[in-house]
Amino acid sequence: MQTRQRIAHFTSLDALATEDIEQLIERALQLKQGASVRPLPTKTVANLFFEHSTRTKCSFDMAEHHLGLHVLPFETATSSVQKGETLLDTCKTLQAIGVDALVVRHGETGYYEPLQQQLSIPIINAGDGSGQHPSQSLLDLMTMYAEYGHVSGKTIVICGDLRHSRVARSNAHVLQRLGATVIGSGPREWFDETMGITYREMDEAVATSDIIMLLRVQHERHTDGRPFAAEEYHERYGLTEQRMKRIQPEAIVLHPAPVNRGVEIADELVEHPQSRIFDQMTNGVFARMAILERAFETATIKETR
Amino acid sequence: MQTRQRIAHFTSLDALATEDIEQLIERALQLKQGASVRPLPTKTVANLFFEHSTRTKCSFDMAEHHLGLHVLPFETATSSVQKGETLLDTCKTLQAIGVDALVVRHGETGYYEPLQQQLSIPIINAGDGSGQHPSQSLLDLMTMYAEYGHVSGKTIVICGDLRHSRVARSNAHVLQRLGATVIGSGPREWFDETMGITYREMDEAVATSDIIMLLRVQHERHTDGRPFAAEEYHERYGLTEQRMKRIQPEAIVLHPAPVNRGVEIADELVEHPQSRIFDQMTNGVFARMAILERAFETATIKETR
Amino acid sequence: MQTRQRIAHFTSLDALATEDIEQLIERALQLKQGASVRPLPTKTVANLFFEHSTRTKCSFDMAEHHLGLHVLPFETATSSVQKGETLLDTCKTLQAIGVDALVVRHGETGYYEPLQQQLSIPIINAGDGSGQHPSQSLLDLMTMYAEYGHVSGKTIVICGDLRHSRVARSNAHVLQRLGATVIGSGPREWFDETMGITYREMDEAVATSDIIMLLRVQHERHTDGRPFAAEEYHERYGLTEQRMKRIQPEAIVLHPAPVNRGVEIADELVEHPQSRIFDQMTNGVFARMAILERAFETATIKETR
Repeated sequence: MQTRQRIAHFTSLDALATEDIEQLIERALQLKQGASVRPLPTKTVANLFFEHSTRTKCSFDMAEHHLGLHVLPFETATSSVQKGETLLDTCKTLQAIGVDALVVRHGETGYYEPLQQQLSIPIINAGDGSGQHPSQSLLDLMTMYAEYGHVSGKTIVICGDLRHSRVARSNAHVLQRLGATVIGSGPREWFDETMGITYREMDEAVATSDIIMLLRVQHERHTDGRPFAAEEYHERYGLTEQRMKRIQPEAIVLHPAPVNRGVEIADELVEHPQSRIFDQMTNGVFARMAILERAFETATIKETR
Repeated sequence: MQTRQRIAHFTSLDALATEDIEQLIERALQLKQGASVRPLPTKTVANLFFEHSTRTKCSFDMAEHHLGLHVLPFETATSSVQKGETLLDTCKTLQAIGVDALVVRHGETGYYEPLQQQLSIPIINAGDGSGQHPSQSLLDLMTMYAEYGHVSGKTIVICGDLRHSRVARSNAHVLQRLGATVIGSGPREWFDETMGITYREMDEAVATSDIIMLLRVQHERHTDGRPFAAEEYHERYGLTEQRMKRIQPEAIVLHPAPVNRGVEIADELVEHPQSRIFDQMTNGVFARMAILERAFETATIKETR
Repeated sequence: MQTRQRIAHFTSLDALATEDIEQLIERALQLKQGASVRPLPTKTVANLFFEHSTRTKCSFDMAEHHLGLHVLPFETATSSVQKGETLLDTCKTLQAIGVDALVVRHGETGYYEPLQQQLSIPIINAGDGSGQHPSQSLLDLMTMYAEYGHVSGKTIVICGDLRHSRVARSNAHVLQRLGATVIGSGPREWFDETMGITYREMDEAVATSDIIMLLRVQHERHTDGRPFAAEEYHERYGLTEQRMKRIQPEAIVLHPAPVNRGVEIADELVEHPQSRIFDQMTNGVFARMAILERAFETATIKETR
């Protein structure tokens, strides 16, 4: 338990104080504006991605580069995990070899629970099953703060598959903590009553919100046999050109990507002046730099005690 | 269209002025002789290889290292392309994350056409389907210039599967632009009448040429069901020891590799004093350095405007 | 043969003089205690792992980082080996591209024999089929020397599948050269009479040894169809809690890992105060630094002649 308190794991925004979250957002925004970093060239990090990813993995890699970190190459496909080694033993091995922090994406929800008590190096969660994706949440928040300076009093609609999204639940929670009103939209059967937010029809929801967060339709998680009707989804629950015309003049559109063009959003709107989809990707690098800095600052304090 | 003219994409030698090609060759030769580079340690490049490669990928990696570039790791097998993301969106994502140039090999001929108008960072084509392989062409030219100083008035025979080779067509074209005579040889049914070169029988062709360019038999592209008769091919169209004895005393032999030893060329001849096959690999690193320098020089001019 | 003598290949401990081995152990121990290295930032190494590995690959990567080496990325899965290129041609290609040393793990026993005469850059064997795994042997030795300063007069028991272990045979040989007594234990049918060591029952062997080397049960190499009885193996041949109570008070326990917890060793004993299993992983980095230094020192001497 001692270990758990000292090491600055980053597993979910729910585990952080509101103040800490705001501090991370502020630091990320400063870094984007060119604040200088204290490079960490003697520190090594390994990125363990047991699930596919372009954005998140490349974004962490770029953040690590900007911090001057050494990145130990680690290919999950050819690792000893294929010989039946547990994730804990793999992580302990990397710790023994001299790795100073681990960035992990894994298909098992809450995979980090047994790790954070047994490791003396920080775990940074890059996505766990249908659980959390806190670095994505942080970059979403950062994108909103870049726009408005805060989210207090703002209305955010989260549209789509709330039930299976690891982003939706943690975003809904943290946004409310930060003073925002959160509503849900999209297919009624994908709405999640347990999230403590209100459901509204798509037309009304997008017309009255300051921030429209579209969720990706995860075809790979919907395997009930029925072919997915993309056009029908787009008409009923997507951000069509018609709906776009009725959004607030200062409202912004977010999507975690990869985008299914013509499904969650019309192809031509992806780079609309009110879309922040590619800004989110740019922001992600700075959000992850702030996350990594925090992990190493705490670790450094521990060492110098 | 503005974008297209400003960004120094490198997609095919056909798209370059003869003067530009000669300048690239000269710079590559200077770099090989130890000319100093202006390192680019703050620039990031990503290598996207959607088709297998050792030589080309490693050669680009080494060239990037010599230029002090940061290489963002990118594994096509575990990227979001597996989630159905388009190549354009993957490239735009990397651009948003801060990548300054993309080296791409892709199975689709002309994959770069839609990219080069939509991206504000240069695309360097490392091979497109049965289209072009311009960095290979450049290193072939560089190897010839290293030998003769020019190709004007030289006779080059290209032997093998001209029809399916992405190297053959662009090499034939550029060599003629540079003043060389190009002929074709190998199986008559693999000759391509539309290339505008003459066909000659193997025995005559190799005996009368200054440069003998062997093409790789691409077993993976010949799937008509018949087993390939390697020995028969070697006897009829390969560079056998007997044919080698009759080549010009100053002629040189090129092959893009990987070599099928005993098929296109006799095993013992791969490292013959007149073979330049391993020199080509060494030269490839310098050719790619020149290509990358060009991409970044133009990009830098744009930025400082 | 000239080449063979000049280039400092590192293929098996059997090929090294006892003095050279002791020198490598001593250098590795010095590096662990913080001895400074002469960085090699202009040298490039490539790690070619044709078999799965976490520990060995990451350990070499970390060692290369500490030495300031440039590591050329090389993915065996997407290399031209998939197009049928021989290992020799792949290695020669990398040499032509400018790689200064190759670290290779390959499934074929003795794969390095044809390479070491044909290459002018050193090959470092990171495991060959059921042959050798000399960097593992060296880190095992280093771990023993860290404990006792030497192995002369010590008794070492090697427990498990001696017949299929690439570690067992070379360890048994080198330990005897260094003055130790080596015995074998584990399943009688997995014992190898040709190794020139004595067999003892597990209970007696562990109680009388200074060093207990457990071997991994390689499920992937035992495919005789019978399901493996893990519990039975543990009771009869594993380091159970009961057996642990009877080991010498200063004895230490080694395992090359990945550990099958509850098979070769009880789960709770992996991090027992007398276990050196994670120390071995830490030591591996320094052992490999010493190995790489040796490869480059010799190569440098050759160059400056």
